[in-house]
Amino acid sequence: MRRTGRHFLQIPGPTNVPDRVLQAIGRPTIDHRGPDLPVLAGETVEGLRSVFNTKGPVLTYPGSATGGWEAALVNSLSPGDRVLMFDQGYFSATWEKVGLRLGLQVHLVPGDWRRAVDPNVVESMLREDTKHQYKAVLVVHNETSTGVTNRIADIRQAMDSASHPALLMVDSVSSLGSIEYLHDDWDVDVTIAGSQKGMMMPPGLCFHAVSEKALAASESARLPRSYWDWNAMLSLNETGFHPYTPATNLLYGLKEALSLLAEEGLDHVYARHARHGEATRRAVEGWGLEIFCSCREERSNTVTAVMMPDGMSADEFRAVILERFDMSLGSGLGKLRGKVFRIGHLGDFNDLMLAGTLAGVELGLMAGGIPHKKDGVRAALDFLAETSA
Amino acid sequence: MRRTGRHFLQIPGPTNVPDRVLQAIGRPTIDHRGPDLPVLAGETVEGLRSVFNTKGPVLTYPGSATGGWEAALVNSLSPGDRVLMFDQGYFSATWEKVGLRLGLQVHLVPGDWRRAVDPNVVESMLREDTKHQYKAVLVVHNETSTGVTNRIADIRQAMDSASHPALLMVDSVSSLGSIEYLHDDWDVDVTIAGSQKGMMMPPGLCFHAVSEKALAASESARLPRSYWDWNAMLSLNETGFHPYTPATNLLYGLKEALSLLAEEGLDHVYARHARHGEATRRAVEGWGLEIFCSCREERSNTVTAVMMPDGMSADEFRAVILERFDMSLGSGLGKLRGKVFRIGHLGDFNDLMLAGTLAGVELGLMAGGIPHKKDGVRAALDFLAETSA
Amino acid sequence: MRRTGRHFLQIPGPTNVPDRVLQAIGRPTIDHRGPDLPVLAGETVEGLRSVFNTKGPVLTYPGSATGGWEAALVNSLSPGDRVLMFDQGYFSATWEKVGLRLGLQVHLVPGDWRRAVDPNVVESMLREDTKHQYKAVLVVHNETSTGVTNRIADIRQAMDSASHPALLMVDSVSSLGSIEYLHDDWDVDVTIAGSQKGMMMPPGLCFHAVSEKALAASESARLPRSYWDWNAMLSLNETGFHPYTPATNLLYGLKEALSLLAEEGLDHVYARHARHGEATRRAVEGWGLEIFCSCREERSNTVTAVMMPDGMSADEFRAVILERFDMSLGSGLGKLRGKVFRIGHLGDFNDLMLAGTLAGVELGLMAGGIPHKKDGVRAALDFLAETSA
Amino acid sequence: MRRTGRHFLQIPGPTNVPDRVLQAIGRPTIDHRGPDLPVLAGETVEGLRSVFNTKGPVLTYPGSATGGWEAALVNSLSPGDRVLMFDQGYFSATWEKVGLRLGLQVHLVPGDWRRAVDPNVVESMLREDTKHQYKAVLVVHNETSTGVTNRIADIRQAMDSASHPALLMVDSVSSLGSIEYLHDDWDVDVTIAGSQKGMMMPPGLCFHAVSEKALAASESARLPRSYWDWNAMLSLNETGFHPYTPATNLLYGLKEALSLLAEEGLDHVYARHARHGEATRRAVEGWGLEIFCSCREERSNTVTAVMMPDGMSADEFRAVILERFDMSLGSGLGKLRGKVFRIGHLGDFNDLMLAGTLAGVELGLMAGGIPHKKDGVRAALDFLAETSA
Repeated sequence: MRRTGRHFLQIPGPTNVPDRVLQAIGRPTIDHRGPDLPVLAGETVEGLRSVFNTKGPVLTYPGSATGGWEAALVNSLSPGDRVLMFDQGYFSATWEKVGLRLGLQVHLVPGDWRRAVDPNVVESMLREDTKHQYKAVLVVHNETSTGVTNRIADIRQAMDSASHPALLMVDSVSSLGSIEYLHDDWDVDVTIAGSQKGMMMPPGLCFHAVSEKALAASESARLPRSYWDWNAMLSLNETGFHPYTPATNLLYGLKEALSLLAEEGLDHVYARHARHGEATRRAVEGWGLEIFCSCREERSNTVTAVMMPDGMSADEFRAVILERFDMSLGSGLGKLRGKVFRIGHLGDFNDLMLAGTLAGVELGLMAGGIPHKKDGVRAALDFLAETSA
Repeated sequence: MRRTGRHFLQIPGPTNVPDRVLQAIGRPTIDHRGPDLPVLAGETVEGLRSVFNTKGPVLTYPGSATGGWEAALVNSLSPGDRVLMFDQGYFSATWEKVGLRLGLQVHLVPGDWRRAVDPNVVESMLREDTKHQYKAVLVVHNETSTGVTNRIADIRQAMDSASHPALLMVDSVSSLGSIEYLHDDWDVDVTIAGSQKGMMMPPGLCFHAVSEKALAASESARLPRSYWDWNAMLSLNETGFHPYTPATNLLYGLKEALSLLAEEGLDHVYARHARHGEATRRAVEGWGLEIFCSCREERSNTVTAVMMPDGMSADEFRAVILERFDMSLGSGLGKLRGKVFRIGHLGDFNDLMLAGTLAGVELGLMAGGIPHKKDGVRAALDFLAETSA
Repeated sequence: MRRTGRHFLQIPGPTNVPDRVLQAIGRPTIDHRGPDLPVLAGETVEGLRSVFNTKGPVLTYPGSATGGWEAALVNSLSPGDRVLMFDQGYFSATWEKVGLRLGLQVHLVPGDWRRAVDPNVVESMLREDTKHQYKAVLVVHNETSTGVTNRIADIRQAMDSASHPALLMVDSVSSLGSIEYLHDDWDVDVTIAGSQKGMMMPPGLCFHAVSEKALAASESARLPRSYWDWNAMLSLNETGFHPYTPATNLLYGLKEALSLLAEEGLDHVYARHARHGEATRRAVEGWGLEIFCSCREERSNTVTAVMMPDGMSADEFRAVILERFDMSLGSGLGKLRGKVFRIGHLGDFNDLMLAGTLAGVELGLMAGGIPHKKDGVRAALDFLAETSA
Repeated sequence: MRRTGRHFLQIPGPTNVPDRVLQAIGRPTIDHRGPDLPVLAGETVEGLRSVFNTKGPVLTYPGSATGGWEAALVNSLSPGDRVLMFDQGYFSATWEKVGLRLGLQVHLVPGDWRRAVDPNVVESMLREDTKHQYKAVLVVHNETSTGVTNRIADIRQAMDSASHPALLMVDSVSSLGSIEYLHDDWDVDVTIAGSQKGMMMPPGLCFHAVSEKALAASESARLPRSYWDWNAMLSLNETGFHPYTPATNLLYGLKEALSLLAEEGLDHVYARHARHGEATRRAVEGWGLEIFCSCREERSNTVTAVMMPDGMSADEFRAVILERFDMSLGSGLGKLRGKVFRIGHLGDFNDLMLAGTLAGVELGLMAGGIPHKKDGVRAALDFLAETSA
């Protein structure tokens, strides 16, 4: 039977794509070597700079964010190079696998996934690395699988305190365009992002912001590369042309999405996500459920992972909600499979969509017979009413 | 500042138009005299018949439903003819004005707008009209301004009991495609509908279903007519061609909307609206507010008019909700201006959209400082959970 | 089998609707009583004024242009009023029928359809009408069925010379937005237009520009009217609100189409149509076929009616072209059925679309075995090359 | 000033994307881990198999076709492996560079770009390679830069005659969906294609068809790989899920484009391209210009490269056509820069679009003062008329 009304796409990305972006993507394809392309590309470069908060080069690849991980590594590292990573969640684990497949030596600092990276650990590990064998420190800004947000500024500070020359590479896939991100101020060397979360686009593009130091490192980096090669792609910043056919229609969408962010203003974007994150957390507390991220200050403003009561399957719960209430929630990934569900509250979103989302979870708790208190939506509405301007 | 996310268009029409319909409307325009048009028109005729529940002719005019009112009158009546109407709400009053402008004598039976038409009154008035001066009885099936639904079958029964030959004309603008409507079984002579409510289309088309008796009446009807003339427009049912250029792109949308209704199944459509109507009414009771329609059995499944507490302005309340929560609610119309607000719960809609809608009202009650109990959303969610399958 | 590529919609309207307009029409429907509607409506009013070249009120009805004819008559005339018309083609004949159905006395000056209205005839007839029984003179600016363009300025001059007080009503359906039209300068009282030709929209809206004199006449006009009533619709010019639900999504398209005209500049729009009209005429001469309009100066810049060689069926010819080359051409209408085909060269059009169009006609002449010279496309290309800037 | 009408995008890709595909791409993004994705992916897998003419696995990557080249190499080869290529045009030269960057030893057989690969040369070179040092033979089926089409069946035959075990990798970027391609029958090991040419999509996806032999080779291949890894991506053929977030909205478009090809029928698709290719070649001969591909039998049915008369700049010529007639033509690439222009006649195309395209070239020849005979369009129209059914 037909599902009526709008689907609630409340996974932590892809997010609900605004109509303006969808329409932009549906415009006629143009000559990628003609005069209109560099104008379009230039506008996206400027817009991305503003979102990354960088004055340096930004790159747009046709590809998924997974490709952005690979691109960061192959451009700046050589076979056998050591990199420092943190076992923080499914996506940091997946990035590790990319590194291993490419022939890097990855030191993965263990973790329980419920806390952010401890900058003190970063500092002490780097201090111990007196030979500077770590060529890069790789961190996921906002772990989409756990709803934990790292403090990149503190990690940078730790690296500086240790006077360690490693590159700092940050995955901002589920934070860019939603949670403040300061590529230049935080002195990040490579930031990787994708189109389908805070950027309010369908998947299919990935982005880099690259520091001068990273560019210098790429000159001696010996991992083989072609598609992802920065040298070729830097032309985008100079001439507006891509080294190969760009995904023109997704670029239309990107331009429109960047306009939407600019129209709202990044400060408002961040504040909106913070407010919706808090409302969501209050709802979870209202239900008497446990937020997976164990530290209040480290909870993400874009995604909240919620632990299922013991013995209950998060996947069955999600299936009930999808079937009865036409809402997609994020599944538990990796070792969290079946144990958590994730609520995405990012992208093109507003109070009533959030209210519908939380109502959907509460309806699912009722319909699925999950033990809970019925105060979740209530708590969220109270918070939203108090803080609405 | 940009409003983020989807607007909640919760007026009682135009309703939220499904993406499939919007995309259909955006397809390239075709030759209205070419071979594709009659195929398209034929599909819409078949679909409309199914929604009107008629085997007779159905007509599609480029125009608003207001034009459909005029069309019904000019095709079947003559200058000075008497018609019987009921003062039931803003739209029945507006239809009366159309009749007066066209030179009819309208007998408007007074009413307080909070109750449906009493079939006994219809019967007794028609019995008294022994000379059969009333040429038509005009009823609004579902008064959009008040949220009161008439029992057309009972009104027809009353007319039959009085053995009165008047035509029965029914406005089904805010019921067609949402509340069961049986043009043939109820022996309605002219049903008027529009595209922008239960039909899930933008405004711009109006529809007629016409009985044999009405067609016969049109032969001697002397009100001047051209654009709305049934004779010309009946070609649509025979050849699939319109007597003048049809609104082709809206026809694409109509075809798609009719497909959506068929995919869901009309019984499901009616049940869905009934369930959402009941959830809404429970929410209103949960807030301790008064539903305008004073009789429980006559409350509409597509729109609920809610009375503001004394001294409070419904328009200010709606403005707060629009401004802070980006939701449009219906205003009080005519003598209800400022005194009621109306929640539309029809069209392409689902549980979580309704939850968001009711949350928006509750947030508005809180933000606007309106005295209320906070049990509205709660009551609706409980009902939705109990009745979800 | 699927037809590949773009259909060539070369009837004289509906015309090829630009993608920007189609996308605009596909945007989410809004509250027609909310704050965004008057802004949208106001923009369309300003844009229409610029295209009509008027400072007076302009009106937008949901409806076809046929409704615009009716609207002009019912607002300004009374039952039995005499109007002067000219038998110029299918659409003037159809407008006559509208007048007759509404109860007017129409004096139809005979004509052979191949020439424009002779202003001298207008003047002499009005001079003879010493009692001023003619209440209106009705003229089609550009007869879509024949490709003949009238000189409205000269007709106005003739009326003034005769010092006759009749209203001047002009159908500009297939000229507005394509051929210069000066509502105020030509002192026209009511201009009627539609959305689907030079305005580059799908059908579904009709427009009026109305003079002060016409508004004054409407005060004493006694034809019954409601839907088309100017008094009600004038609110559009004052508050931006319609008296009934407007066709919101078509208004989005109208706004976009008006933007397109403004971006090009009306002078360029007119010059482009003149150039394409001339190229088309040269092609017809190149084929050795006869243009229906017998006077070179009166040939339309938006549509060219071409006479088929004796004994050949224009409809079979058009069917061959539709079947084999996927192009729609206009049929002969009324007494021209089967005798002419019509090439539309208006709306959102350019040199290569015209070249494809004329190539399609030439291919049809070859494929259909129609006697012709093969110099049509050649002549058009030569002209286009000479005059391209 | 605004350009009116449709742009003629007559580069050899991206091609004119059908409206149905553009609308599909603009549909709301879905959960890439939800139940709808594997259905969608499965449909695209089946459709791609039919277009590749293979029963084996097909893969869809988010990325440009350039990435498809890289993907073919990194999955099947090891550092330092020798591969055999042919200097056939800009794209074979670019693919060579990809191989070199990845650390392969490329033997590039010289050529003058005007002829196809000689299968006898392939056979003799492979016979000489008695140690089987060549691990792969890389061929571009249809060189987009020159308009030369290779005979892959004959090349395969040559490899078999030489009993050489090298893999056969073929770039079908500008032939797939336009010129017959038989992955299984020709025993190709890896075929690489992209979305933006015969597949009638915007750029952003690349495709592989992979043989059993290639899959076996990938087990011992040691080039580092992650994003492009076949093992991970094969899940697409088994479960319908991608190893990372797929470009969902482009997949919608792909499904629609595959439907369009199926509706037309591949045999009709090939015949249509052959007919349009021949019409284009006749036009070039009619102008007295020289087709770059020197062998009649090897001329491409999707793109024709035309040599400019000595001393004339193809880029200036193209600029005139773009500026005055709003048509994009392909530039000369690499050593052909300025010396040829390329006409794309592939994708979603029909007779009148081709006529408009050729008229655009002829208008450009006139407007640009290029010496030519005026018989190009004429010759093409005669051919199209003769061969229209």
